[in-house]
Amino acid sequence: MSVLAPMGFLASGVASGLKSNGKSDIALIVNSGPLDAVAAVFTTNRCLANPIIWSKQVISGGKAKSIVINSGGANCYTGAEGFQTTHITAERVAELTGTAASEVVVCSTGLIGEQLDRSKLLPGLEAASNALLAGTGEDAARAIMTTDTVPKLASRESSSGWKLGAMAKGAGMLAPGLATMLVVITTDAVIESADLDSALREATRVSFDRLDSDGCMSTNDQVTLMASGASHVVPDSQEFQELLTSICQELALKLLDDAEGASHNIHIKTLGAASEADAVEVSRSVARNNLFKAAIYGNDPNWGRILAAVGTTTATFDPYGIDVSINGVLISSNGEPALDRSNVDLSPKDVWIKIDLHAGSHEATVVTNDLTHQYVEENSAYSS
Amino acid sequence: MSVLAPMGFLASGVASGLKSNGKSDIALIVNSGPLDAVAAVFTTNRCLANPIIWSKQVISGGKAKSIVINSGGANCYTGAEGFQTTHITAERVAELTGTAASEVVVCSTGLIGEQLDRSKLLPGLEAASNALLAGTGEDAARAIMTTDTVPKLASRESSSGWKLGAMAKGAGMLAPGLATMLVVITTDAVIESADLDSALREATRVSFDRLDSDGCMSTNDQVTLMASGASHVVPDSQEFQELLTSICQELALKLLDDAEGASHNIHIKTLGAASEADAVEVSRSVARNNLFKAAIYGNDPNWGRILAAVGTTTATFDPYGIDVSINGVLISSNGEPALDRSNVDLSPKDVWIKIDLHAGSHEATVVTNDLTHQYVEENSAYSS
Repeated sequence: MSVLAPMGFLASGVASGLKSNGKSDIALIVNSGPLDAVAAVFTTNRCLANPIIWSKQVISGGKAKSIVINSGGANCYTGAEGFQTTHITAERVAELTGTAASEVVVCSTGLIGEQLDRSKLLPGLEAASNALLAGTGEDAARAIMTTDTVPKLASRESSSGWKLGAMAKGAGMLAPGLATMLVVITTDAVIESADLDSALREATRVSFDRLDSDGCMSTNDQVTLMASGASHVVPDSQEFQELLTSICQELALKLLDDAEGASHNIHIKTLGAASEADAVEVSRSVARNNLFKAAIYGNDPNWGRILAAVGTTTATFDPYGIDVSINGVLISSNGEPALDRSNVDLSPKDVWIKIDLHAGSHEATVVTNDLTHQYVEENSAYSS
Repeated sequence: MSVLAPMGFLASGVASGLKSNGKSDIALIVNSGPLDAVAAVFTTNRCLANPIIWSKQVISGGKAKSIVINSGGANCYTGAEGFQTTHITAERVAELTGTAASEVVVCSTGLIGEQLDRSKLLPGLEAASNALLAGTGEDAARAIMTTDTVPKLASRESSSGWKLGAMAKGAGMLAPGLATMLVVITTDAVIESADLDSALREATRVSFDRLDSDGCMSTNDQVTLMASGASHVVPDSQEFQELLTSICQELALKLLDDAEGASHNIHIKTLGAASEADAVEVSRSVARNNLFKAAIYGNDPNWGRILAAVGTTTATFDPYGIDVSINGVLISSNGEPALDRSNVDLSPKDVWIKIDLHAGSHEATVVTNDLTHQYVEENSAYSS
């Protein structure tokens, strides 16, 4: 139930000292083949960290033998020296594992604008390499944690003999952090990079892309999918898509559930939309509304704030023909109050908002957290 | 220094009981002419309160003799009964002041989804009318307050003999509230509604539209400009624009400064932009970034969060050619750290962020507040 669930991978996680608390901070995953296919999706932020700039080049070739991830520093806005650090990282991992730097994916997470200390990083890479034979997928998952309280792992198995494994960190309302999300998914299915790419884009579209914790987009987000082919099984493409989407959705909910500072997981489902894009836009506008999110923190079913957020979108609907339910209670219908707000129980951690636009047959769910004192506290006490 | 600064207006503010705390909650302003020209700008939210729907009809005719505003209830999502309440309000004010209901502008502010109590509202309208002769502009300004700590008033005088007066309430980080902003501006200049309309749109574009406290848009916002013509002076159009813009900017800063729950006023200036729209987009993206706003609350000059927000925009720039200054300290330049963050003093209430895109000659400033414990507290304890 980790990135080592599929055959053909090695993994490790070690402490190099990049994290001042001495916890593990370098994860290394090596694909021992026979395939070295890879695909990835990246943050759409235009202000990109150095490892993102590097990894985009690697991924464009469709081949990677390893991925190395450091926590303890984002290596973003660190200029030429910072890019050189990423380059040296890839070269050192290539030397240690017997491959080319152009096949080493690099990810980083932590504070923007600080150089990584190479005197700690480079020995750490050697230690990570040395730990590969005895290392576990959980070691790797722990080394990428920032303020995650638990490592996040998942796996899937096809009855035809191939597997998926995965690890994830971050995503929203995490302190200290820019909500950076890093995910690595491994498979031993026989599948080429172009097919990995299309499957990964479809899977992330309906999972990580619908996790919107605080509306803030990191400079370092990356989701990487590596195929070793070690099962020698060519997967059914529909089954591969289903299991890949399923593992991404499981990880997205794990990220949501571990978001620090949050007291509620809020699932915002918009249905009856004229298009899926409309449904996503409406759900996301509610997910990003601070007044609504603060109300949920206060266990206050303030549905006016939901409709006020819906009203800022360009989706197709009649503003006075919308139904809003909170935890199964129809609280507003057709532009008027429906059942009394006192019927809504917001004490459970999971909150289900349902918005029926009555404008079509499409739907989508965006998940978010509430806006809490802990969120303010943790994100105001970050680098100071 | 109120809406009564110009000649040709009467004003009052009374307590009807709509506010449970017994404070004044109905403001009435009557234009005694000779002109009855009016213009207004409204929230662009598609989920509109009943008074907005009504007032849009009135304003479309370009004529209004009075404006009546209640606090203690938004009259939004209250269905046919709620619209009828607005209609009855206009009819009653028309009877009391000797005009037509179609020339009575109505505004409301308060909780969404609750009916206004007509048994309190209608006697309150009569009391407001009775109070007009002895009433003051400050009475009216107090009656529209929700959690504002001070009434907000302003005035301007032209050397050619005409004046502007104004009152405002609300805008962002106010509890209990949806950040509803209501503004009434009066003038005794001789000016027709079409000219009022174009001048008001230009003035609000560079004042209230650049006040973005928490990114949440109310269902009830309205800025109304009424001209009595009582000075008998036709204003120079450029001077009228200048004084109108100036009074709107003064009120916007007063709203910012009184925003409850905020500990910093943040002025985000983007310069070197390829267009004014680019500058506004960049400044607004920073103004809406919760991580940045929480950092400022913690007196943390976390410039990485500024650049991460800038990177989500579509403005023209080289992501690694941007300069960022905080309170006069150049803290990041050309994709790298510049002066050390310890040089930045964030203890003053006003914070000045300067973002130079080096992509052109346009600039704009958006003002916002920090994200604080008090904001969460006040907005989570609203209707419960």
